[in-house]
Amino acid sequence: MSDVKKVVLAYSGGLDTSIILRWLEDQYQCEVVTFTADLGQGEELEPARAKAEQMGVKEIYIEDLREDFVRDYVFPMFRANTLYEGEYLLGTSIARPLIAKRLVEIANETGADAIAHGATGKGNDQVRFELGAYALKPGIKVIAPWREWDLLSREKLMQYAQTHNIPVDFAKTGKKSPYSMDANLLHISYEGGILEDPWAEPEESMWRWSVSPENAPDQPTYINLTFQQGDIVAIDGEALAPHQVLARLNQLGGDNGIGRLDIVENRYVGMKSRGAYETPGGTIILRAHRAIESITLDREVAHLKDSLMPKYAELIYNGYWWSPERQMMQTMIDESQKVVNGEVRVKLYKGNVTVVGRRSDDSLFDEAIATFEDDAGAYDQADAAGFIKLNALRLRIAANKGRSV
Amino acid sequence: MSDVKKVVLAYSGGLDTSIILRWLEDQYQCEVVTFTADLGQGEELEPARAKAEQMGVKEIYIEDLREDFVRDYVFPMFRANTLYEGEYLLGTSIARPLIAKRLVEIANETGADAIAHGATGKGNDQVRFELGAYALKPGIKVIAPWREWDLLSREKLMQYAQTHNIPVDFAKTGKKSPYSMDANLLHISYEGGILEDPWAEPEESMWRWSVSPENAPDQPTYINLTFQQGDIVAIDGEALAPHQVLARLNQLGGDNGIGRLDIVENRYVGMKSRGAYETPGGTIILRAHRAIESITLDREVAHLKDSLMPKYAELIYNGYWWSPERQMMQTMIDESQKVVNGEVRVKLYKGNVTVVGRRSDDSLFDEAIATFEDDAGAYDQADAAGFIKLNALRLRIAANKGRSV
Amino acid sequence: MSDVKKVVLAYSGGLDTSIILRWLEDQYQCEVVTFTADLGQGEELEPARAKAEQMGVKEIYIEDLREDFVRDYVFPMFRANTLYEGEYLLGTSIARPLIAKRLVEIANETGADAIAHGATGKGNDQVRFELGAYALKPGIKVIAPWREWDLLSREKLMQYAQTHNIPVDFAKTGKKSPYSMDANLLHISYEGGILEDPWAEPEESMWRWSVSPENAPDQPTYINLTFQQGDIVAIDGEALAPHQVLARLNQLGGDNGIGRLDIVENRYVGMKSRGAYETPGGTIILRAHRAIESITLDREVAHLKDSLMPKYAELIYNGYWWSPERQMMQTMIDESQKVVNGEVRVKLYKGNVTVVGRRSDDSLFDEAIATFEDDAGAYDQADAAGFIKLNALRLRIAANKGRSV
Amino acid sequence: MSDVKKVVLAYSGGLDTSIILRWLEDQYQCEVVTFTADLGQGEELEPARAKAEQMGVKEIYIEDLREDFVRDYVFPMFRANTLYEGEYLLGTSIARPLIAKRLVEIANETGADAIAHGATGKGNDQVRFELGAYALKPGIKVIAPWREWDLLSREKLMQYAQTHNIPVDFAKTGKKSPYSMDANLLHISYEGGILEDPWAEPEESMWRWSVSPENAPDQPTYINLTFQQGDIVAIDGEALAPHQVLARLNQLGGDNGIGRLDIVENRYVGMKSRGAYETPGGTIILRAHRAIESITLDREVAHLKDSLMPKYAELIYNGYWWSPERQMMQTMIDESQKVVNGEVRVKLYKGNVTVVGRRSDDSLFDEAIATFEDDAGAYDQADAAGFIKLNALRLRIAANKGRSV
Repeated sequence: MSDVKKVVLAYSGGLDTSIILRWLEDQYQCEVVTFTADLGQGEELEPARAKAEQMGVKEIYIEDLREDFVRDYVFPMFRANTLYEGEYLLGTSIARPLIAKRLVEIANETGADAIAHGATGKGNDQVRFELGAYALKPGIKVIAPWREWDLLSREKLMQYAQTHNIPVDFAKTGKKSPYSMDANLLHISYEGGILEDPWAEPEESMWRWSVSPENAPDQPTYINLTFQQGDIVAIDGEALAPHQVLARLNQLGGDNGIGRLDIVENRYVGMKSRGAYETPGGTIILRAHRAIESITLDREVAHLKDSLMPKYAELIYNGYWWSPERQMMQTMIDESQKVVNGEVRVKLYKGNVTVVGRRSDDSLFDEAIATFEDDAGAYDQADAAGFIKLNALRLRIAANKGRSV
Repeated sequence: MSDVKKVVLAYSGGLDTSIILRWLEDQYQCEVVTFTADLGQGEELEPARAKAEQMGVKEIYIEDLREDFVRDYVFPMFRANTLYEGEYLLGTSIARPLIAKRLVEIANETGADAIAHGATGKGNDQVRFELGAYALKPGIKVIAPWREWDLLSREKLMQYAQTHNIPVDFAKTGKKSPYSMDANLLHISYEGGILEDPWAEPEESMWRWSVSPENAPDQPTYINLTFQQGDIVAIDGEALAPHQVLARLNQLGGDNGIGRLDIVENRYVGMKSRGAYETPGGTIILRAHRAIESITLDREVAHLKDSLMPKYAELIYNGYWWSPERQMMQTMIDESQKVVNGEVRVKLYKGNVTVVGRRSDDSLFDEAIATFEDDAGAYDQADAAGFIKLNALRLRIAANKGRSV
Repeated sequence: MSDVKKVVLAYSGGLDTSIILRWLEDQYQCEVVTFTADLGQGEELEPARAKAEQMGVKEIYIEDLREDFVRDYVFPMFRANTLYEGEYLLGTSIARPLIAKRLVEIANETGADAIAHGATGKGNDQVRFELGAYALKPGIKVIAPWREWDLLSREKLMQYAQTHNIPVDFAKTGKKSPYSMDANLLHISYEGGILEDPWAEPEESMWRWSVSPENAPDQPTYINLTFQQGDIVAIDGEALAPHQVLARLNQLGGDNGIGRLDIVENRYVGMKSRGAYETPGGTIILRAHRAIESITLDREVAHLKDSLMPKYAELIYNGYWWSPERQMMQTMIDESQKVVNGEVRVKLYKGNVTVVGRRSDDSLFDEAIATFEDDAGAYDQADAAGFIKLNALRLRIAANKGRSV
Repeated sequence: MSDVKKVVLAYSGGLDTSIILRWLEDQYQCEVVTFTADLGQGEELEPARAKAEQMGVKEIYIEDLREDFVRDYVFPMFRANTLYEGEYLLGTSIARPLIAKRLVEIANETGADAIAHGATGKGNDQVRFELGAYALKPGIKVIAPWREWDLLSREKLMQYAQTHNIPVDFAKTGKKSPYSMDANLLHISYEGGILEDPWAEPEESMWRWSVSPENAPDQPTYINLTFQQGDIVAIDGEALAPHQVLARLNQLGGDNGIGRLDIVENRYVGMKSRGAYETPGGTIILRAHRAIESITLDREVAHLKDSLMPKYAELIYNGYWWSPERQMMQTMIDESQKVVNGEVRVKLYKGNVTVVGRRSDDSLFDEAIATFEDDAGAYDQADAAGFIKLNALRLRIAANKGRSV
C-alpha cells in the first residue's frame, strides 16, 4: 500500500468520508486532496471546507458544478427519453461521470496518483466512479475503502472515529434518517431501512423533496416549456440556464406532488434492490420532451430512438458514460434533436403531469392531411388499398401455401 | 363489382354502417351478413339486431367476445409491457385482430366471398382489419366503402340515407359528439374536432369513462392484484375471469381519475394524428405488471424484453397481430412469463397509480444479499474490484493508446 | 394525363426506355428530357446521346457519376459492413438513390414537373426511385410506365416500337441474354430465366464479370489495402480515388473468381425472388473492412454496429436512403470510423478472399496484454475471479431460489 | 483452502492438467475425480484413463459426448445462423456449456464440493466454465489453478512436474506445436506463437484439419443436404445422426480446403486476441442453413432473427448458454425453425462453399408471382403505386415543411 503518494478523495464533509480521509492517510501514508462538489444536493459546501481544514487537508477543492451537471449530463440524457427498466430516471447514475471526471482532472492538477470514493462494494456507484476514472486516466489507482477495510459495522466506524480524533458531530445531524440517501439537482434517492422489504410501503415522512399528491394544491398549475434542439431553454417565456430550468421544475413539481417513484431495480453487480426516488423536474421534462418530439420527429427516427433507448439507459446505469459506445449513440441522438424545437404546455396537478398542448415551427403535424373533414385531395384514400395489398402479400402467399398463424 | 356474392359486414347498428350495408347491396348486388360484437364498448347489441332485421338482413351474427378479447389479445399484449411510442396502450389496435378473425370465420361459415368494414382510408384500422383478413384467408375480397364511394361529406351521406330509406334515427343519439370515438373493454378513444389542433386542450366534457383527477375521491383506494404467469387472476383475493379483471379495474381506475392520455401519434399510413384515450384498467395493469416482473424476472430477460417491446408494439399498432413475426415474439414473451407470479399492492389516487408493495414465491429479490446491513458473507465485496477492472480493461487499453472519450 | 408538361426520363438508350420515351410523349403530350448516367455499368454513353437525338429529344443529360457513386454511396454503405439477409451486398439498391437525386435535380434545372423510370411494378427499384424522388421533391409527379401501360408482352412492345418508328436495333445486341440484368461499378445482377427455379444452378455462361474459381489463376494474388476513416484510399501503396479503388478491386477480384453470389431474397414488395450477383471488389472491401475494424474498433462499438447493421441494410434495400432515419444511423456509423485507419493484407485465390494481416497506428490490439507468454503484470489474472463471480451472481441467486435453466 | 474435500477436474490426460491434478491434491488436500470427454477432438480417451490411474485417481469419468454436443449445442446454435463479430463460428464457446454441465453432474454424483479446470485467467473459457457451473449449482466451489498458483512459466511447471513425479512424457508429443490449440467436432483453434502479431500470416504447416485451397482437388464436389426443422438430417439422402452429419461435413469440407478463418476478436475479459480456426463442416452448415431459410422463412421472421443474432452470438461467446435470456431467445429461434425443411445442393471447391440449389415443400417462393413473364394477374402492379405513395407520405410531408435530407 506504500506506493500511493497522493490521493484525491470525493469528500462530502460527513462522518463517513472524514473517516475515509483519515484511514487513507493512515493506511497509505499518503497525502489526501479533498474534492467537494455542489451538484444541487441542497447542502452548504463551506462546512465541508471547514471540516477538511480541521482534518488538516492542504489541498481543498470546493466547486459548484450544477451548470455543468445539467447542461452536459442531464440534458443530453433526456434527449433520449431515457428510463432504466421502464421507470427509473437515473438520477444517481448520471451524476457519477462528472464526479469521476473532476476527480481525475484534480489528480492531474495536483499530481495525485490515486483517487478514492466512499461507495460500497455492493452498489453501482463504485462501478460508475471507477469505469469513468479508468477511461479518463488509465493508469490511475482507485481506492475503495469499503471494499478494503474491516470497519463494516457502525460500531467499528464510531470507534475508529474516536480513536482517530474525528469529531463525531461531523455526522450530519440534519439528515438523521434510517435510509441511505443520495441527492443532486435531478433527484433524491432512498435505499435501505424498511425499503429492504419490497412489500412495505414507504412512510410519508421519508420523502423530502415533494409533498404528497394528497397534500398538493387543489388548483392545477399550468406551465409553458420552450425547447431548442431537445433541451428546455425557457419556462413561461423566461429564458433560463439549464440548471435554473431544472431547479425551477423541481420546485414546481415538488409543490404539486410530482415525481415520486418506488421500484425494485436490477443492479449491475447482479442483485435486485429496492429504491425510492423523487425526481420532480425530471418527471416533467420527460413527459414534455416526448410531447415536443411527437410533433417534430419523423416516425422512424422516433421509433429507432425508442428501440435504442433501453441500451442507452443501461450504459448510463452501468457506468459507461465515458465509453465510445455511449458517445457513438449520443452522436446519433443529438443529430435527431436538431428539429426538436417548440413549445409544450403542461398541467401539474396532485402528482399528475399532463401535456395539454404542443406547437412548433418544425411541426410535422399536417392538419390538412390528418383532418377527418374533407382534405381537398391532400391524401388519396385509394393509395391505401395498394399499400395494404403489398404489405399483405407475404402473409397471403404463406397462407396460400398452407401456413397458419 | 359483380363478382361478389355475399359479404360479411362489421356492423355496429349505427347510421354509417347501415348506409354501408345498403350501399354494398346496391353496388355489388350481393347479400350482406352482419356481424356485431360486444367487445365491451358499453352498448347494447340487441338494437343492432333489430336494425339489421329492419334492413332485411337474413344472416345476423351478434356475439359477446369480451372474454376472448381480454384473454387472447389484451392479456398477451400486456405481458410485454407494450406501449406504442412510449405512451399509447394500443386499445384500438388490439381489438382489430379479433374482429378480423371473426369476419373471416363467419365468411367461411356462411360461404361469403368478401368482408367489409367501415374504417376510412386514412387510418390504421383499415390496415389492421385487412392484414388480418388476408393472413387468415388469403383469397378473401375486402371491401372498404370509404375508399371507394363518393359519399365523402355528411350531406351526401344523409342524402344517401334518405334516398335509400335508411331511418336517420339509426344515428346513435346517445353519443352525439364532435369527436370520432372508438370503445372496447380496454379503452375509449377520441379523435377529430378540436383535437385536430395539437395546441388545444380537450374539454373536460369530452371524457366519458373517467372522472377528472380533480373530481376523484379525496381518499386513496388500495387494491391487491394477484398475477399468474404474467396475467392478473384475482383482485383483492377474489378470482376473476380476464374480462372481469379488466372491467373491475376500469371501474376502479375511472373512479379515481386514472388512465387519461392525450398524444400526437404516428400512423402507419404516414401521417401524424392527435388522439385522446381513456384506459383506466390498462394503466393499472401496466404498472402492476412491471412491478411483479421487477421481483420475478431475471435482469437480462427483463432488459431483452424491454429492448424488443417497441418492435412488438409497432407490430400490433401496424396491424401485424396475425403475422409469423408477432407469433414468434409472443412465444418468447410467454416463455418469460412462467415465473411472473405473485402479488402487487397498488394505491389509486386522483390520477396516480402507485405501486406500494410486491411479493412473490418466485421472487429473485434476495434480502440477505441486498441488505445495507451486515450480510454475513453472502456477497464478497472484493469481487467487485475484479469485476470493475475487467469491465474497464478495454477502456484503459484505448486510453493508453491515446484515445480520448 | 394532360397535366404533365415535361418529364425527366432515366434513359439507357436501349429499346425499352426508347419505347417509354415515345410512350410518354404520346400519352402525356409532354416534352421528355433524357438522363443517362455512367455508374460504371461498362457501356459507352455516347450511343445513348445519339439515340436520344435521333428520337428528337432536345434536352439530353449524359453524366459520368462514377466518383459520386462510390464516394457518397458505396463507401458510406461499406462502413457499416452492410449485408442484406446475411449475404447480399446491395449493388443495385445503392445506385438508385443517386439516380433519384439527379432526376430530381434535372427536373429542377429544366423546369420539369415529372420524372419517369423503366422499373417494373413488381420490383424494388420502383420503390427506391420513387421514395427518393418524393423525399427530395415532394410535389414531383412520378410516371412508372410499366405500372400503367398494357405493353406487357414482348410482342406488344415490339409492335409498339414498329408502329412508332423506334429502330428495333436500339435493342442492345451485345447483351443478348435470357436474364434481366443490372450493372454498375459495384456489381452486375441477373434475374429471371432459369433462375426462376431456385433448384437450378446458373450456367457458367451467365456470369460476365468474373472467371469461375476453376478458371482463375493457380497462383494467389496478394494486395495491401490502406484505410482512412473506414474507406480504402490506396492499393499496394498507390493512392486512388474511390471509384478507382473499386474499379481496381473489381479487376483483381474478377480475375481471381471472387464475388459470385446466388441467393433467394425477400423483396420489399412482398415476394421472394432469386438473384445472382457478381460483386468482386465489394466482396474484397467487406472482408478487408471487417479486418481493419477488428483491430481499431472498441468491442462494444463493433457490437453495436453489428446489431444495427441489419436495420441499416434493410433501409437501403427498401429504398430509404433519403430518409432521416438512414441519415441518423449514418451519423453514428461515420462517427465510429474516425479511428478505422491502417492497412490490411489480403490474399486472393480462386474465389477466396483471405485476410492474412492487419496493422494500424490506431490499433487497440495490445500484445503485452494478449500474450500467452509472461505479461509482466499487465493483466492481473486474479481480477477474473471477481469478474466472473459478479456476472454469475444473478444466475446463482436464481438457482438458489430453485430456478432451473 | 482446507474446506474442499473432493474436486472434479476437467482432465485431458496431458501434462498441464496432470500437474493441476497433483497441485489440487497438494494444495487443497482433497480427493480428485477426473472427467475426460470425447467431444470429437480426435484423440483417444483411453490414454487419459491410464494416466489418471497412474496418478492414483479413484473416480475416473471417461465419456463420449459427441452426440450430445452436436445435437444439443451445435445444431441449436446454427439454427440462429450464429456468427460472433461477423465471422467466428464459436467452435470453442459452444463446447464449454456441455463440459460445465457434466462437471456439475459428476460433482453431484460423486459428492464433490468443487470443480476445477485448466483455463487461464486471461481467456474466455474460464468464464464459460464458471458461469455454467454457478448457474447449474450455485453453491459449487470453482478452482482455477492458473489464477491461483505461481507456476507461470514453462520452467516452473516442468520443475513442479519433476518434483511431484509427474511423468514428463504426459506432454502430448504428437501435438508439438508453437500454438495453443483447442479442438472438438466443430472446430480446431490456434492462438499464440506468431499469431500474436496480427500482421503475420499463419504458416501453412499450422493448419491440421484442412488442406489448403491450393492443395484441394481440381474437381468440385456436389452434395445434397436435407433439413428438418433447421437441422441437417441427411447427406446425399443418407440419414445420419447429428454428430455423424458434422463428422462427414468436416471430412468433405477439410478435403476441399473449406473453413479456415484468421481473425482478431474481442474477448469478454476485455482484450483483443488473434485466433485462427478451422471449421470445415460448420462453414458448410451455415451457408446451407441460410439457403434453406431463404425459401422457407417469412421475410420479417428472417429479419428479426438477423437482428437478434449478434446478441445471441455474444451470449454464447461470453459464456451465458446456461442463462434464462439465452433460453428465452432459443425458444423463439426454435419456434421459427418448424418450417425450415427441405433440401439444399451445395458445391464444394477449393475453399468455396456455393449454394447451387434449394427446394422445399414448405417453400414460400412463388414462381407465379415472382416471374418476369406474364403472371396471369397473380400480382397487380398498380398496387405498388399506393404502397409507395403511403410509404413516402412522411417523407413528403417533411420535405413540404422544409426539411432536407
